[in-house]
Amino acid sequence: MRMKKAHIISIGNELLIGDTINTNAAHIGQRLTHFGIVPEQIFTIPDEYSIIKKRIGRSLVHADVTIVTGGLGPTHDDITKKVVAEIFESRMVSDELVLKHIKKIFSDRGFTLSPSNIEQAHVPEACTVLFNKQGTAPGMWFEKKGNYLAVLPGVPYEMKHLMENGVEPRLRSIFKDLNIRVTDYLKTAGIPESTLSDLIGNLEEYTNNGVGVAYLPNPGGVTMRLSAEGATKQVAEQKLVKLRKMVFDKSGDFIFARQRDKTLAEVVGSLLADKKLTIATAESCTGGMLSNEITDVPGSSSYLLGGVVAYSNSAKSQLLGVDGEVIEQFGAVSKPVALAMASHAAVRFGADIGVSTTGIAGPTGGSADKPVGTVWIGFFICGEHFALKTVFTNNRLVNKQRTVMVALETLRRHLLGINTYPYELKPHYS
Amino acid sequence: MRMKKAHIISIGNELLIGDTINTNAAHIGQRLTHFGIVPEQIFTIPDEYSIIKKRIGRSLVHADVTIVTGGLGPTHDDITKKVVAEIFESRMVSDELVLKHIKKIFSDRGFTLSPSNIEQAHVPEACTVLFNKQGTAPGMWFEKKGNYLAVLPGVPYEMKHLMENGVEPRLRSIFKDLNIRVTDYLKTAGIPESTLSDLIGNLEEYTNNGVGVAYLPNPGGVTMRLSAEGATKQVAEQKLVKLRKMVFDKSGDFIFARQRDKTLAEVVGSLLADKKLTIATAESCTGGMLSNEITDVPGSSSYLLGGVVAYSNSAKSQLLGVDGEVIEQFGAVSKPVALAMASHAAVRFGADIGVSTTGIAGPTGGSADKPVGTVWIGFFICGEHFALKTVFTNNRLVNKQRTVMVALETLRRHLLGINTYPYELKPHYS
Repeated sequence: MRMKKAHIISIGNELLIGDTINTNAAHIGQRLTHFGIVPEQIFTIPDEYSIIKKRIGRSLVHADVTIVTGGLGPTHDDITKKVVAEIFESRMVSDELVLKHIKKIFSDRGFTLSPSNIEQAHVPEACTVLFNKQGTAPGMWFEKKGNYLAVLPGVPYEMKHLMENGVEPRLRSIFKDLNIRVTDYLKTAGIPESTLSDLIGNLEEYTNNGVGVAYLPNPGGVTMRLSAEGATKQVAEQKLVKLRKMVFDKSGDFIFARQRDKTLAEVVGSLLADKKLTIATAESCTGGMLSNEITDVPGSSSYLLGGVVAYSNSAKSQLLGVDGEVIEQFGAVSKPVALAMASHAAVRFGADIGVSTTGIAGPTGGSADKPVGTVWIGFFICGEHFALKTVFTNNRLVNKQRTVMVALETLRRHLLGINTYPYELKPHYS
Repeated sequence: MRMKKAHIISIGNELLIGDTINTNAAHIGQRLTHFGIVPEQIFTIPDEYSIIKKRIGRSLVHADVTIVTGGLGPTHDDITKKVVAEIFESRMVSDELVLKHIKKIFSDRGFTLSPSNIEQAHVPEACTVLFNKQGTAPGMWFEKKGNYLAVLPGVPYEMKHLMENGVEPRLRSIFKDLNIRVTDYLKTAGIPESTLSDLIGNLEEYTNNGVGVAYLPNPGGVTMRLSAEGATKQVAEQKLVKLRKMVFDKSGDFIFARQRDKTLAEVVGSLLADKKLTIATAESCTGGMLSNEITDVPGSSSYLLGGVVAYSNSAKSQLLGVDGEVIEQFGAVSKPVALAMASHAAVRFGADIGVSTTGIAGPTGGSADKPVGTVWIGFFICGEHFALKTVFTNNRLVNKQRTVMVALETLRRHLLGINTYPYELKPHYS
């Protein structure tokens, strides 16, 4: 079967003038690639009738699949729906299910329905509605002479929802016998990109025949993308298996997930749930970010008992029971305070594990002795009691993020019995 | 002078398959807009000779200015330079200054110069070199029949450096008498996009002559972008002032900031600092997100005393002192529990203000009575005691975000004496 090509069309002046960064196109490109469909071009175009019409019209001829996002909102500048109705010479009809859904959303929230909201239930008769559970703008699916067109809202989580539940099942059933591309995202934490690539070394003998590795660094760690393709899934996966084995042999301890969307908090959460362990947090410099990431995971209430954001010294004493004299003597950013916060958090909440953070997030508050970026992270893990000291950057948000990453990655390695620490830090015992 | 149009061309397979998000195009779009040049389309295309040639060739005819990024590296798939040389029928010559610069970079780092590195100093004879202090790939500037083309490396900080020091000075001197464009970002919270646009109403009398309003929704609220242009900055600003006054008259209570990067937590933080008030949080369904956002603001330790993440019922009782029988009788997601969490948080931390959240974040845990998305937000503000009930979506992360937004926006309005509530919610008193 010949290669299938896709065009992605992103509509919106806000994208052109740089008000919004186009993350939607990247997500769609990723998903199409997964199905063996090549995203050949991305067009970002303004909310202008003639340009939208010309662009969609051309892509419908040149691409096997066209995915359009944006311009489906209730305001005057949202004209995508009118354009596709004209392209398909189709009259607008009100979709009963969509209208019911919109009415329910508004009545649940106690809002009044405006005429422009009711109009959101209108769709061109030629389309199949992609029902949007997450919002008021329905997605639309069209076919024209064996070419396919999906029109999706521009709100990222609505777009993702409709890709997953509307577009992807259709692509899977239409393009059954495409050249399959298999990809593995191996996510690491607590190791710099250069150290990781030195560890993996030269890959030339693996990376021919459509097999490759890319290093994708981001604030939460470095992700390795391994990919391979072949006429069948088996052929592609055979190629990938050899490469993956080598990468795991060399860097397995650092890899916390094999799915791109998986977070470190999810992985730690699963380990806690498996081992039936509970956790409590005591946060100073991270201000709630650690418990926030843990509670982003559905079901986290089964292992997170709670936390204290002990921002002031009196909160550290009164809510956590850290000895005020210890804070006085060593300072709030110190090993003894980090250790006490961790163990007291565990005791207060009756948890197996307590984790604490105390540091100077910045941009001010540092000293020669304790510069901005100095952080102590305390651990009380089923009786084992230690703290890590790190010095990060002078960027407040980066310091918060890295502290949370090191805390979670230390937990992960400890729960798995891996006896190294993130960034080769050394544990300080009490 | 007629409007000047620009095309932005982003080259690179990594952009198409979604490994990299195209932040470069947003930056370039912003800068062009500032100079009164309209970024009409963004094309993201693969590292393929024929596609690059066709695309640049077309844009050179259709756009006054074309900015190309990517494909200038030392590896085999970087072919942009060869393509432009062919378009301009120009032979390649080695640029002495660039070669010297590349040699210096390599000797400074102690690396050996490879043939492909030396080739980076080759440029088409027809171009003016845009000297790249930040890297080894030179930028290039071309002119063809009054149309302009800049070719820049794809590494974001190199691209920004060359935009600022190579491209922008040239645009400024070539397009001296372009219309100046001025922009205001008005950020709102607690009002749906459709309600806001109905409130502002028809803008026809304002939006001619290059004056416009755009609604940019995101999970934290809707931002209105007001823009105007004119032959001089004064003329443009006069147009904007009239529009801004009208928008403020109609929706001023909902506007929390006039700067694009300002967060609601920053605004509430400034109000607390001005009024010398302190705050404490008691979070259940938001799991620390509220205190996390508050502590993203530098200096927040002066007003945030701390918080409790009371995820389990026993944490609500033991750490916050909420009556266990009240939880038993009304359930954890209820008005009495939200009220008690808020006042107890204030008392425990000795703060003037206590804010609480308790709800069903989802995706599971709902009932007919209390569906997923049901949230109670409690307030204890200098003795005033009330709670708001909302029903959001079935998306866990969106529910957390919206809860935090409503909590902060309620505080903002209360501290400013605005007597409405986000989303027209009604306060429930004890």
